[in-house]
Amino acid sequence: MRVLGIDPGLTRCGIGVVDVSATRTVSLVYVGVVVTSPDLALERRLLAISQGIEDVVDEFEPDAVGIERMFAQHNLRTVMGTAQASGVALQIAASRGLAVGLHTPSEVKAAITGYGAADKRQVGAMVARVLGLDVVPRPADAADALAIAICHAWKGPALAAGGGALTPAQRAWRDAEKTATSRKAFS
Amino acid sequence: MRVLGIDPGLTRCGIGVVDVSATRTVSLVYVGVVVTSPDLALERRLLAISQGIEDVVDEFEPDAVGIERMFAQHNLRTVMGTAQASGVALQIAASRGLAVGLHTPSEVKAAITGYGAADKRQVGAMVARVLGLDVVPRPADAADALAIAICHAWKGPALAAGGGALTPAQRAWRDAEKTATSRKAFS
Repeated sequence: MRVLGIDPGLTRCGIGVVDVSATRTVSLVYVGVVVTSPDLALERRLLAISQGIEDVVDEFEPDAVGIERMFAQHNLRTVMGTAQASGVALQIAASRGLAVGLHTPSEVKAAITGYGAADKRQVGAMVARVLGLDVVPRPADAADALAIAICHAWKGPALAAGGGALTPAQRAWRDAEKTATSRKAFS
Repeated sequence: MRVLGIDPGLTRCGIGVVDVSATRTVSLVYVGVVVTSPDLALERRLLAISQGIEDVVDEFEPDAVGIERMFAQHNLRTVMGTAQASGVALQIAASRGLAVGLHTPSEVKAAITGYGAADKRQVGAMVARVLGLDVVPRPADAADALAIAICHAWKGPALAAGGGALTPAQRAWRDAEKTATSRKAFS
């Protein structure tokens, strides 16, 4: 299964794509950051972000999307722009019929490092390690997007979808996982 | 000139369209509200909002868009969803090449009622009055969207664009306004 991870942001929006195997091994497909200048009008920045995300969806055709869950407790100076970028990302995922999982920063950190209060350096180092990369993806928004994608892949979309009904893609994944597990158990 | 006004919201997103003449008379073209259930997944709600806005843009072909400017000081419980909806609205405007003006709630109230701290009832009553309607549009989100559209139409997109360079549409409007004004002065 191919998972797109998005770390929403108005100035830097991290976008990562990973493949996850039935044994939960993850591999890097793509990582990048959409950078927009504060000199641009807000709507132009959001359009650039949406185009960046759509380009990646078109090129790499992910099966599911993990996005950072927004909380109002974040830094108030940047929270509005981040929320607006996350709204655009969520709308694109829904318009493409992709299953979406929202993950809090501490869920992502815990999934990647085993520690919900890990710092950015620890997250970046573990992202590089699990993807078998020689260097940590930069900037931090790129590594964070990969961390979100990996978290989503590992938690399983069925768990991450927030308790709603399973989409066909989620059911297929759940069934594939069950099959993979039983094969292992009986082989 | 035809102006689309959007009062972003996740549960109720107000959408209004008005025509404004060179003499600043405004008339109602369309008003509606996209309502989404909290039972729907967040991305589905944002998709419904984007489809509602796109449908109105397709049908009524506005020349400019006024959207409520978001501040982090708003009600923290609803601010994230409102910001996400506003991000979607802004992205649609930019993708259609429409000039966008962001207006604070007090700017809108002052433009409509002459009083920046006017309450919803006063805004609704003045919206009905300037548009020549027998009844106040309901719910309040519908009246608010019309108020934003009227505010944007009256302030003039050139003033409302936030100090950036004028778009071709904004230049055309500014020139049309100048022509209208000079015609009046010299007729």
